[in-house]
Amino acid sequence: MHSVFEFLIALASILFFAKIFGEIALKLRQSAIIGELLAGVFIGHSILGIIHETPILTSISEVGAVILLFEAGLSTDIKEFLKVGGWATSVAFIGVIVPYFFGYLVFLYFGLSSAQAIFAGAVLTATSVGITARIFTDLKKLETKEAKIVLGAAVIDDVIGLAILAVVLKLVQGGTVTFRTVASVSGSAVLFLVLSVAAGTLIAPTLFKFISKMKQKHIILVMGIVFCFAVSAFATKVGLASIVGSFIAGLILSTTNQSEEIKRDVKPIYSFFVPMFFVLMGTNVNISVFNFFVAVNREILILIAVLFVVAFTTKVVAGFAVLKKGINKLLIGVSMVPRGEVGLIFAEVGFKNNVFNSNEYSALIAVIILTTFITPVVLKCLLLKQNENG
Amino acid sequence: MHSVFEFLIALASILFFAKIFGEIALKLRQSAIIGELLAGVFIGHSILGIIHETPILTSISEVGAVILLFEAGLSTDIKEFLKVGGWATSVAFIGVIVPYFFGYLVFLYFGLSSAQAIFAGAVLTATSVGITARIFTDLKKLETKEAKIVLGAAVIDDVIGLAILAVVLKLVQGGTVTFRTVASVSGSAVLFLVLSVAAGTLIAPTLFKFISKMKQKHIILVMGIVFCFAVSAFATKVGLASIVGSFIAGLILSTTNQSEEIKRDVKPIYSFFVPMFFVLMGTNVNISVFNFFVAVNREILILIAVLFVVAFTTKVVAGFAVLKKGINKLLIGVSMVPRGEVGLIFAEVGFKNNVFNSNEYSALIAVIILTTFITPVVLKCLLLKQNENG
Repeated sequence: MHSVFEFLIALASILFFAKIFGEIALKLRQSAIIGELLAGVFIGHSILGIIHETPILTSISEVGAVILLFEAGLSTDIKEFLKVGGWATSVAFIGVIVPYFFGYLVFLYFGLSSAQAIFAGAVLTATSVGITARIFTDLKKLETKEAKIVLGAAVIDDVIGLAILAVVLKLVQGGTVTFRTVASVSGSAVLFLVLSVAAGTLIAPTLFKFISKMKQKHIILVMGIVFCFAVSAFATKVGLASIVGSFIAGLILSTTNQSEEIKRDVKPIYSFFVPMFFVLMGTNVNISVFNFFVAVNREILILIAVLFVVAFTTKVVAGFAVLKKGINKLLIGVSMVPRGEVGLIFAEVGFKNNVFNSNEYSALIAVIILTTFITPVVLKCLLLKQNENG
Repeated sequence: MHSVFEFLIALASILFFAKIFGEIALKLRQSAIIGELLAGVFIGHSILGIIHETPILTSISEVGAVILLFEAGLSTDIKEFLKVGGWATSVAFIGVIVPYFFGYLVFLYFGLSSAQAIFAGAVLTATSVGITARIFTDLKKLETKEAKIVLGAAVIDDVIGLAILAVVLKLVQGGTVTFRTVASVSGSAVLFLVLSVAAGTLIAPTLFKFISKMKQKHIILVMGIVFCFAVSAFATKVGLASIVGSFIAGLILSTTNQSEEIKRDVKPIYSFFVPMFFVLMGTNVNISVFNFFVAVNREILILIAVLFVVAFTTKVVAGFAVLKKGINKLLIGVSMVPRGEVGLIFAEVGFKNNVFNSNEYSALIAVIILTTFITPVVLKCLLLKQNENG
């Protein structure tokens, strides 16, 4: 019965520290995700050492990542998003290409391998929908044109990011980087996406109308999760990450009449599984890397500083892709800076596939955390200045 | 990535078949739990063979059992229950002692060992609160005196049953059965129960009042689960089953002002984890045991028949422990017949601890299923007859 004790205590500790650190983060007007990551750093091997990753905890945190992207897919309003689609798409594409390119160069300059640079560039592309939306909500600016463009671009960023992840993952697992492999992998990813969204949006509304006639409690929620797990599983069969599948599953279900019910009822499950994911991610961070007094770390710290500057400025540049007058381009650019979940998932996948060692992984996590820490502060200054001028 | 595929497909299949079979069970006016068990039999090694128990699935189903009893504890209204406490207690005690004694004798008669008989007797003691409540709700008789006595007795049954489980588990794991071990184990179980309920009801309301001031979504739910897992874990440290701990945790939290919120929000988590528990339980059932044409199985089938008669009549006897006039004693007795969750958990614990082999385990599950199948039919006849007379 000893292992039952350890298992239950591990789950209890992860959730407890996630919520305590998450609460502190909120008090400091930061995202709760940052708190959960730091909770992981605190209880992981770097400091307390009470949580060690086990196959069971890894599986549970995998479910967390799947549920996280499922919810993101469910929350994507395809129609609303098409309204600002043009400018959002420009911002998104520039906001993926520029950070990717400069991130790749920085990594090569610091002596990392080409495969590592390909992966690390990808980490810098994603914009966090959650964090971005939260900042605009907090500052009561969610109804502005700038907010809509930013949120639209963040969603497209997610989709592009997940497609890049598919390609990059295949390259890293396969070995060689040729135009042929890139084309075939991205082709199969796009094919899976298009086919499953097309088939899904045709079948899902009828399927879930039928399911909604069943009598069991939470039947729609559970069948929604079944659908999500099934699509995620089959995504891995065509070489995509499971989270790409769950995002697609969420997108498909967002078109059903039952989407509101699924979104509401999945939240308790979300608040159980998702912190597991971020906390366990934090436990893999090696804080000794950040000790400036150890000579060998200085290069890593300089890498973090340079990467942060690149991560910040390249997304700001993307804001200027909006050529329309009367739009605050700087505001849009700065809003795109926080990397958040998808970036973290990239780093995690790279770490799990041995692309990054513990030091490089920790550096990437640090850069992602920095982008998320600093953006709200800068945004607030910008918005105050805009109010003064306007 | 192959294992991610298998893991997600396993979760999806378990939930899918649980809901399909659960729905069929409801259509046949049976409990959804029966459907979930049969779903397990269907997808387990006996028939389809698509689900094999792995350490990860076992852990997830363990969380299911813990959440199941947590919810049962949360739903226990201690005050309501004290009103009919006297008669309910008599019914409960007679309804534990008589089935236990006769169950024990039947097992010995069929040539099983003393340890097996001690455990199997325990399987016959518990009354399912869930199934019992559901029958009365369906027949719109929840407000009758009989219903209140039955529900009160079912709760006490659970508590006595869990205490018996603690003792029996220790005996089976320890080996020798002496008065001293029985006394020390039941003593420590009762001490843990009394101390944790006393300390818990003192501390929990203040603790959760504080937690309710925190800002994160579902913070009360998650902290409630943290509390549940922590108490469950420490219960295993004093030799109790984890589910005893989670039942106690639920009881404690039922006294807080936040109990309604926890009860409401835990339901989606319940509907995710609890079916995992019943389905996996079903996968361990070996249906070849029920093939009457194989000579060696006939004894098992006769055992099932005899056990069923004992299981039925001994609980009916308990109804007559109510000595008050104007109370339908037969109705109370019959209502106590369904064994359900706690009985199933006993059988499962016995199987996992190698007390029962696969055949004996399957026989016990069959008896539990039979009690749950037949009771609603008999009850309906009784209630119709009562309406004619009254």
